[in-house]
Amino acid sequence: MAVRVDLNVSLDGFATTTDQSPENPFGEDWSRLTAAYVATKTFRERVLGDRSGAGTTGVDDRYAAAYFEEIGAEIMGAGMFGLHTFPDDPEWKGWWGDEPPFRCPVFVLTHTARPSITFDNGTSFHFISATPHEALARALEAADGADVRIGGGASVARYFLAAGLVDQLHVAIAPILLGSGIRLWDDLRGLEAGYQVTSETAESGTVHVTFRR
Amino acid sequence: MAVRVDLNVSLDGFATTTDQSPENPFGEDWSRLTAAYVATKTFRERVLGDRSGAGTTGVDDRYAAAYFEEIGAEIMGAGMFGLHTFPDDPEWKGWWGDEPPFRCPVFVLTHTARPSITFDNGTSFHFISATPHEALARALEAADGADVRIGGGASVARYFLAAGLVDQLHVAIAPILLGSGIRLWDDLRGLEAGYQVTSETAESGTVHVTFRR
Repeated sequence: MAVRVDLNVSLDGFATTTDQSPENPFGEDWSRLTAAYVATKTFRERVLGDRSGAGTTGVDDRYAAAYFEEIGAEIMGAGMFGLHTFPDDPEWKGWWGDEPPFRCPVFVLTHTARPSITFDNGTSFHFISATPHEALARALEAADGADVRIGGGASVARYFLAAGLVDQLHVAIAPILLGSGIRLWDDLRGLEAGYQVTSETAESGTVHVTFRR
Repeated sequence: MAVRVDLNVSLDGFATTTDQSPENPFGEDWSRLTAAYVATKTFRERVLGDRSGAGTTGVDDRYAAAYFEEIGAEIMGAGMFGLHTFPDDPEWKGWWGDEPPFRCPVFVLTHTARPSITFDNGTSFHFISATPHEALARALEAADGADVRIGGGASVARYFLAAGLVDQLHVAIAPILLGSGIRLWDDLRGLEAGYQVTSETAESGTVHVTFRR
């Protein structure tokens, strides 16, 4: 029953990109930041619904598969769900189409009440106005013994990390410099204390760093 | 005849630490940032003059040895030489004792004139008030066909990187978060374009990332 964070970060530490526009709602930086992850077989199957078996199967794919294992509930910020990009669309159901890859309850932190959304594959989105501690208590209850993931974005993950609530942090560092966005590492001096930190490089050039209690 | 940069950086991107004090002129953060490098056999021999053969001999040591190979001249900032820490000591000869590990001409960027210092082992320090381009021209001439290293600190290295003057950048990323200091990566968006980037992890947990033209 661990609380986990998995994020893609650039070599200069940006985990949330900020070059989104109505024409390009993810932004070019996000595509570059997540390129190695998006290329994996697991991402293609689980997130894109591609059953062809295409995609990379090396180190990046091993982490991509682990990303989805043992997660019983997720917490994400309003920005990650898309509420900052599409604030006026009451029908907005997230970025992930009709089969969101989560397959568990997802708690979206927002001060604006919205009805819950339920999908056939086990994914449900619940919009809650709560402190991180309150949200975590709800997610742990919903996870019923499985792990809880703090999905992001960077500010939400950093909040939970700074509060000492995270048992395992995995970052996939893309060897690129974005120069702008939201930094994951700000104000986390000494975070490594209390964790074992291991690193592994992937064929793509991505460096996977894992902090484990 | 390449221009090279080799730096230790923290996971949050700090390459120069700023917690120095008269009582602790390197600072605790610097010790933590460079711990894996300082532990190598090469550092102990070349920098500390330890002939006992002690020190680590794995991946970190391989990079430590490469650090000194083929360098014909070096450029460093006044802070790296110690002029900011000991501005009023005309006898200051740097941090490195009677056998500085450089064994080549070192050009120290400073606006304050000082006489050159020469050591028996081939190291000499020359204090020059010059633009980075001018300093590089002098260092390339002194190197006489060998490589030139931009030694640091972070601001000096970043200046040369941003100016497109660096052929090879090696950073040894320590898996620690310092939270303060001088960032290497600021304002270097897109630096990776024009370089091949490779990564390798060491037994110490250090991640070695190399940009090569």
